[in-house]
Amino acid sequence: MARPRQPIQSEMGWSTSDRIVVRGKDLPSEILGHVNLGDMAFLEVMNRLPTPDESVVFNAIAVTLVEHGMTPSAIAARLTYMGAPESIQGAIAAGVLGIGSVFVGTTEGSALMLKKHVGEARTEEELRNVAQGVVAEYRAGRKQIFGIGHPVHKPVDPRTERLFEIAGAHGYRGRYVRLMELIAEEAASQYGKVLPMNATGAIGALLCELDFPIEVARGLGVAARAVGLIGHIREEMENPVAREIWFRVEDEVVDAHVDETFN
Amino acid sequence: MARPRQPIQSEMGWSTSDRIVVRGKDLPSEILGHVNLGDMAFLEVMNRLPTPDESVVFNAIAVTLVEHGMTPSAIAARLTYMGAPESIQGAIAAGVLGIGSVFVGTTEGSALMLKKHVGEARTEEELRNVAQGVVAEYRAGRKQIFGIGHPVHKPVDPRTERLFEIAGAHGYRGRYVRLMELIAEEAASQYGKVLPMNATGAIGALLCELDFPIEVARGLGVAARAVGLIGHIREEMENPVAREIWFRVEDEVVDAHVDETFN
Amino acid sequence: MARPRQPIQSEMGWSTSDRIVVRGKDLPSEILGHVNLGDMAFLEVMNRLPTPDESVVFNAIAVTLVEHGMTPSAIAARLTYMGAPESIQGAIAAGVLGIGSVFVGTTEGSALMLKKHVGEARTEEELRNVAQGVVAEYRAGRKQIFGIGHPVHKPVDPRTERLFEIAGAHGYRGRYVRLMELIAEEAASQYGKVLPMNATGAIGALLCELDFPIEVARGLGVAARAVGLIGHIREEMENPVAREIWFRVEDEVVDAHVDETFN
Amino acid sequence: MARPRQPIQSEMGWSTSDRIVVRGKDLPSEILGHVNLGDMAFLEVMNRLPTPDESVVFNAIAVTLVEHGMTPSAIAARLTYMGAPESIQGAIAAGVLGIGSVFVGTTEGSALMLKKHVGEARTEEELRNVAQGVVAEYRAGRKQIFGIGHPVHKPVDPRTERLFEIAGAHGYRGRYVRLMELIAEEAASQYGKVLPMNATGAIGALLCELDFPIEVARGLGVAARAVGLIGHIREEMENPVAREIWFRVEDEVVDAHVDETFN
Repeated sequence: MARPRQPIQSEMGWSTSDRIVVRGKDLPSEILGHVNLGDMAFLEVMNRLPTPDESVVFNAIAVTLVEHGMTPSAIAARLTYMGAPESIQGAIAAGVLGIGSVFVGTTEGSALMLKKHVGEARTEEELRNVAQGVVAEYRAGRKQIFGIGHPVHKPVDPRTERLFEIAGAHGYRGRYVRLMELIAEEAASQYGKVLPMNATGAIGALLCELDFPIEVARGLGVAARAVGLIGHIREEMENPVAREIWFRVEDEVVDAHVDETFN
Repeated sequence: MARPRQPIQSEMGWSTSDRIVVRGKDLPSEILGHVNLGDMAFLEVMNRLPTPDESVVFNAIAVTLVEHGMTPSAIAARLTYMGAPESIQGAIAAGVLGIGSVFVGTTEGSALMLKKHVGEARTEEELRNVAQGVVAEYRAGRKQIFGIGHPVHKPVDPRTERLFEIAGAHGYRGRYVRLMELIAEEAASQYGKVLPMNATGAIGALLCELDFPIEVARGLGVAARAVGLIGHIREEMENPVAREIWFRVEDEVVDAHVDETFN
Repeated sequence: MARPRQPIQSEMGWSTSDRIVVRGKDLPSEILGHVNLGDMAFLEVMNRLPTPDESVVFNAIAVTLVEHGMTPSAIAARLTYMGAPESIQGAIAAGVLGIGSVFVGTTEGSALMLKKHVGEARTEEELRNVAQGVVAEYRAGRKQIFGIGHPVHKPVDPRTERLFEIAGAHGYRGRYVRLMELIAEEAASQYGKVLPMNATGAIGALLCELDFPIEVARGLGVAARAVGLIGHIREEMENPVAREIWFRVEDEVVDAHVDETFN
Repeated sequence: MARPRQPIQSEMGWSTSDRIVVRGKDLPSEILGHVNLGDMAFLEVMNRLPTPDESVVFNAIAVTLVEHGMTPSAIAARLTYMGAPESIQGAIAAGVLGIGSVFVGTTEGSALMLKKHVGEARTEEELRNVAQGVVAEYRAGRKQIFGIGHPVHKPVDPRTERLFEIAGAHGYRGRYVRLMELIAEEAASQYGKVLPMNATGAIGALLCELDFPIEVARGLGVAARAVGLIGHIREEMENPVAREIWFRVEDEVVDAHVDETFN
């Protein structure tokens, strides 16, 4: 073959016999002991360490995504662990494979919606005008507005309030947050019903405030969920429920067929 | 079917319309803003938040595992992203599926070795006796001692030194760390060559010091690597190398067959 | 909670102490010994067994997708196996996670293109008109036409010719195949260059002929590739190349940084 | 770096502009239209096409592994699809990640048990002696005998009978099959209870008869299950149950905590 050869390059990290460099920093002396796991995610993506304020806001976002009880991801990870206990990595992988367009996708959606429409708007009035336009457009197109509404957490998603409080205390409650709030207000007003901003909307706005690249926002959700799945697998080792979930589902399916066949 | 029904229970987390509880704590008020992503991993597994000293040591361990350049995991994740850019979760999952017995397994191995042999040993002399016995036993069985030796980082793995320094500053340089050091010394002495303790040996010892359950130690490696893979995927979006890696490998395989066939 | 309960039902399969039923058929007596693995995929999706003619065409499609040498999937599976040899399922999973929108997606794309445009066209003239319209539309939109062109296999993709020959011999060379051929002809004519129909275009057309649901066409690619990856993992066990691939990539990345740092 | 370079070679497949070769055969002319998907798995691993008799037996094995209703794998795949419908490959990967040591592992276990003990035994008497020894050894060690017993299918696993019938009709009911049968008989006799040989025992014996490498037996289970999961995902698209499974599990967990908290 005569395909011309390109160089293979990466700025993520490299090492020699006595050095380990990550993102241009000496891992032992400049990173270890100085940063936490959330800061490390920031460094990996942003190519610089967060400021103390950024660190608090970014870690709060990541922490929010870690654990939400018996989610589809947690159930899938537990079922997988039951069949392949030799491979914890496989159970975690199975769990994170469900972190896709349906759940975390709304974070991406709200962030992209804010970025697309915010333009030069900065004042309350300008932002309110943008919000009115966004809601009107989504209503006209009969599309769901990203980041608005929650089946369980209403009238208020308690994560949203707290995340914005933290952001405010650290100087990151800016125009993206305000626009998202105004969109939620406008939506409630135009639709005439209670429509809380949910955590994915809040996180979408905060990732915009931090200038975090939205195209890998889902990756943050995946890594955070991987953290949470360690806990679920540990609990499954000690108090397993996967077999019971399986048996109930299978029995219900079988029973319906047996009834149909023999009655 | 008449399989008796068992309850499905979990203490990881649960929520109602106005509450989100994780590990018995109110997520918005007791967790968000107070803890970082590494602390959250600690909480998930240990069912309590770390002390400030534990937080530093545990985050240092997790951070060490995030990034080591162009690892097999990073290459696999990038190749997967090339074929399925719609699924960042799939690329990360592919990358973490290689976090198995070969690489992270040595962390588990060194921790289990320490736990198995340490017994009641506490003094320098007692620990040295244990270390001599361990090395002699592994030598006799011609088995590799976990956590000792590194193909690249020698005579010293710079992560090991720094991790133990951090542990010492925070009160976690205890008998597991000392036993691991003595095993490394004994191994170098008995084998008569340079055998540095590697980072997996150091991390194995520190997880013992923190009383972290070794059976999910691999999960921590998986979650940390997931954090690192966000960075690799982000770089792959901007400066892709997966296609070049693929082409080079394929071309070399094809060329050998073409030569053989036509010459 | 008061979420109303829905039944959990499935028609895929069920079993009792003495019966195993798959898709309404008794597995031991009606399936085993009568069908091959490709027929089984047909049964799973189409809810009936294929006719002998359908069986040949469908198996030819599936077989085409099994193996194409050192693909990104094969490399990712091998790298994953190197790190986690305890989990063959993990290596295969890593490999199939790259079967996404970029490679197999073109099969879906060509099938959907054909279904969308074919309408009532049946005669050669009608189909040619459709083909002209399709090519003109894609050219105007500067979009790549699915299933046309191949970086390596030109002027003819040898799989395409053979698949259509098989389809013709078994009565499945119908209007979708003809439309795809005419689109390729039109494209070559309008663009003035050699543009072979590739295998994904041929398979897209044949899946339409078989009335196979396009929304799970990718699943067929995934299962077929899983078959191929068994072979790659077996070869990797006996003649490993993953470590060499890793070392070359890592060394190239490291060397560039070392040069830059020390020179 | 100065790591010496090794060649990267593979005999799986390669292609040039006008040729596609798989396992030394010309894919279009020597494979397509001549073989089915099960034969292709045989070719990938065994490096030759099966004889007609081998093809029937091997396809029967593979087909047996495709579908067994609402298994943990099927549930995990459906839950994953619900969260990430953009990635069918991810849903299938999640499902196959549970094909590990617990379920398919017993196939490997029974095959390895047979290979280890069969020695030169060929006559009925010799094989019975071996069987008695195996059962006595496992009883003494209080270990479960691989391939014996089934929680649902008793007194007979209907797949076992049929698989051996097919094997007999095609000349593959040899000494491994007989040894497995005698082990089951001996186990029932020594334990004094009904202990059917299950399908994994039967498949373990048949893979020995076919001389299929046991170290990739699990891969066959993975690929076969991937075939079955296409059907489950297709059904999930049309008649979803994942959300109901999730809601029931989550509601039960939440309700227990709410009761505890408020009562």
